[in-house]
Order: sequence, then structure tokens, then C-alpha cells
Amino acid sequence: MKANIWVLLKPSVLDPQGQTIQHALASLGYESVRDVRQGKFFVIELNGVSRQEAEAQVERMAREVLANPVIEQFRFEIVES
Amino acid sequence: MKANIWVLLKPSVLDPQGQTIQHALASLGYESVRDVRQGKFFVIELNGVSRQEAEAQVERMAREVLANPVIEQFRFEIVES
Repeated sequence: MKANIWVLLKPSVLDPQGQTIQHALASLGYESVRDVRQGKFFVIELNGVSRQEAEAQVERMAREVLANPVIEQFRFEIVES
Repeated sequence: MKANIWVLLKPSVLDPQGQTIQHALASLGYESVRDVRQGKFFVIELNGVSRQEAEAQVERMAREVLANPVIEQFRFEIVES
């Protein structure tokens, strides 16, 4: 079982890293870029669990370890590997 | 126009950050986790370009700025925002 997990800053939280990338892109001539947000993406392999167990475990891992719930939000999907 | 961009280490490249997360998860009792790979995820807003222009620009941005083609690979999708 494989899980794809996205962790992104909440929309209300400023993203200075994304802004830096946006400015770098503008200085390289990419004028059409209006906004850049940078997040994290995790691919996790799980062995010996059902899809239901995988969903419960990944939800808990994302909430407790991968994301900082004060400033970040996450979403995930379970895919058969 | 909005672009989602994933940047991941090539499968042949070791991911020490992912391994650290895997060990942290194992020590917290998530024994079913066999592998963790960490990548980057970007959301870019583009204004005043067609879908075709957006695809060409995002492909170039990813190759030249967001990813290090020596050790990383990327994929992207263009979505109407």
C-alpha cells in the first residue's frame, strides 16, 4: 500500500519561501507568475496493512509528525502500490 | 491558470531526510512503514497565458529553477483556477 501526502501552509499563513521563488522567477522573465506556494510531498510505503488501516495510520502520521497543525494543512490519498 | 508541480529525488538517489522520518515513525510505533521519500510540491498561479503557454512555461521553470535535474525529477499538471 502506498500513500501520497501533501503538506501545505494554510492559505492564511505567509509563505516567504514561495515569495522568494516568485521574485526569482520574475527576475528570470516569468512575468505571468502571480503567486507561488511551496509545500511538502511525501510518498510512504506501508506493508501488511489493509486500506482502512493504512488510511487511519496515514491520517495520524500526517497530523502528528509530518504537518504542523498550527500553520499547515494536509491531504492524502492511499494508492495500491 | 494554476499549476501543481511535484519535485522528487530520482529513485536511484538516497533520501536521508525520508529515512530520518521513517525511523522517527518506527520509533513512534508505526512499524508498517517500509519507506518514506520526501519531495517538494509547488502551486503556481499564472495570469494572462493560455493553457499551452502555461504548459511550456511551467515545464521550463521546473527544469531550470525548481528542480535540480542531476538528482531530481519533476512532473506537473495545469489546472484551471
